[in-house]
Amino acid sequence: MAATMKDIARRTGLGLATISSYFNGGNVREKNRIKIEEAIEELHYEVNEVARGLKTNATKTVGVVIPELNNVFCAEIISGMEDILRSHGYAAIVCDCRTDKKLEKEAVDFLTRKRVDGIINMPVDMTGAHLNEFQKTGKPIVLIDRMIQGISCDCVLVDNVNAAEKAVGMLVEQQHQKIGLIGGPDEVFTARQRMLGYMKALKDHGIAVDEKLICHGDYTIQGGVQAVEELVKENPDMTAVFVTNYEMTMGAVIGLNEMGVSMPEEISLVGFDNLPFARACRPALTIVSQPTEKIARETAQIMLERLEGREELPDHIVRKLQTDIFMGKSIRRQG
Amino acid sequence: MAATMKDIARRTGLGLATISSYFNGGNVREKNRIKIEEAIEELHYEVNEVARGLKTNATKTVGVVIPELNNVFCAEIISGMEDILRSHGYAAIVCDCRTDKKLEKEAVDFLTRKRVDGIINMPVDMTGAHLNEFQKTGKPIVLIDRMIQGISCDCVLVDNVNAAEKAVGMLVEQQHQKIGLIGGPDEVFTARQRMLGYMKALKDHGIAVDEKLICHGDYTIQGGVQAVEELVKENPDMTAVFVTNYEMTMGAVIGLNEMGVSMPEEISLVGFDNLPFARACRPALTIVSQPTEKIARETAQIMLERLEGREELPDHIVRKLQTDIFMGKSIRRQG
Repeated sequence: MAATMKDIARRTGLGLATISSYFNGGNVREKNRIKIEEAIEELHYEVNEVARGLKTNATKTVGVVIPELNNVFCAEIISGMEDILRSHGYAAIVCDCRTDKKLEKEAVDFLTRKRVDGIINMPVDMTGAHLNEFQKTGKPIVLIDRMIQGISCDCVLVDNVNAAEKAVGMLVEQQHQKIGLIGGPDEVFTARQRMLGYMKALKDHGIAVDEKLICHGDYTIQGGVQAVEELVKENPDMTAVFVTNYEMTMGAVIGLNEMGVSMPEEISLVGFDNLPFARACRPALTIVSQPTEKIARETAQIMLERLEGREELPDHIVRKLQTDIFMGKSIRRQG
Repeated sequence: MAATMKDIARRTGLGLATISSYFNGGNVREKNRIKIEEAIEELHYEVNEVARGLKTNATKTVGVVIPELNNVFCAEIISGMEDILRSHGYAAIVCDCRTDKKLEKEAVDFLTRKRVDGIINMPVDMTGAHLNEFQKTGKPIVLIDRMIQGISCDCVLVDNVNAAEKAVGMLVEQQHQKIGLIGGPDEVFTARQRMLGYMKALKDHGIAVDEKLICHGDYTIQGGVQAVEELVKENPDMTAVFVTNYEMTMGAVIGLNEMGVSMPEEISLVGFDNLPFARACRPALTIVSQPTEKIARETAQIMLERLEGREELPDHIVRKLQTDIFMGKSIRRQG
């Protein structure tokens, strides 16, 4: 049997009020503090955080809902956030919703019942209906990477328009005109933003957008394989392709490999994310590199500030981070 | 204010005992059941699982402690387990201990205080000291991928000796004699097993083990880069290398790439894990492929069987799963 506060009271001869005060950080005489700590040691007393959660209404847990744990970008961010949250005494309950809106709603409901103190979410789509109920609890929500229409809350974003613009700009500077786009699903915020950047870059350089060069993938490896095969087949004059997330970048490289299309001789490529993968490719890939560590840090910090209840915080904190370019050898100068 | 059981009693005119019986799955008359469910709907009553956990002594959470969330093998397994656990109403609290024994101990203590119902652990080393305290609670522990000396509990393993033996055997069949090994840290169970398989394969084919050809990496990408650079530098006669996890395989490919060593012309390579990466390499890698989905499923199922308390279970369940080989083009026939 685990020891209780009553056991400690019995052992020390002190009143329950004193013991309780000790555990809740109240004022306890030095002499009594020592007695209590000796008793804790002797009785192997452990704070029951479940019981404490019921009393303080804080469970010291944060729910994290992401589309795919299997997605390297998500995994890196969670890994970084979790370190910071844990060092502040918070556990992260991670729910992977497999890019499924129904599962996402279920995950949020599940976390609500678990009485998590806050939710960090990389939402599957832009409607945000899954968060409505949780928002009514008044507990904090921090969105990562993706915004939601109709829900105002904190979010940590990447400047995806600018990222795509720079990537496509590099291809144009090397005289490419027929540039394919392997975009993400239209209902995903980042996918729209990256598409916007692609269009903006073309427009700024006086190149007309050609719908045939645009392919909507699903942010998976297999989606990338299919998309690059389609683009190559339908566009014999395409000389370059921009791929808008890591999994599809890997897929595009697989596709080119297996079709025997040489990179960059036949097709130049700019990918997204994951420096080690870019270095392992032959030739090394030029990629847009997102600041995953910084995203993790900012997200965890905003959540902690909300949970620790400082009053001077603005209603909504929005952070927009910039991306980098890693220069590989996957772009060939045209003409 | 959230509704309470008392509110439901008031609304329905039924006694608290009936309401309580309803929530605990007891027998309740059809007429009353309907009344209660209407009240739940009207009052937006939600079961407070924190409070329930205090009463039933079950929190419906499972702790998962892994060395690195950022490791694709870990991420794939967790993703699979989490799906199964959640579909049975269990949340997974995932703690990434950064391959640090001290952090691993802290994670287990943290989960113990959170009163998780069980722990799934891929241990950092083979001593198991971090689990001693938790084991005293009598709650189930399931180890994944790695065994621990001195702690008897359920585990789901891969036949790593056989996996390494097959991989090295393939190289020997193609007339390789000077085969380098990029192994893992000596204190890790899988690393020892894979090393054993390497030695066994050489011995079976009458090839003497050469210490100079063995390099202990740290299971990270950067470790793989360094290891392959060292092996190539110190062994001008080495014609092949076997790399024993995914991250180091990626590192070895980066290293060969950046040294300008051609694969398989100069060095043949057999890697470990991650089919998409193997397909994205040029040429495609030959790899040992672990059954991550099956590991996830078996682990979750054993945990659920323990939690649901069927009595006919054996004291310790040990599952040993077999690996596959994916044939790429990274092995050249020698001579």
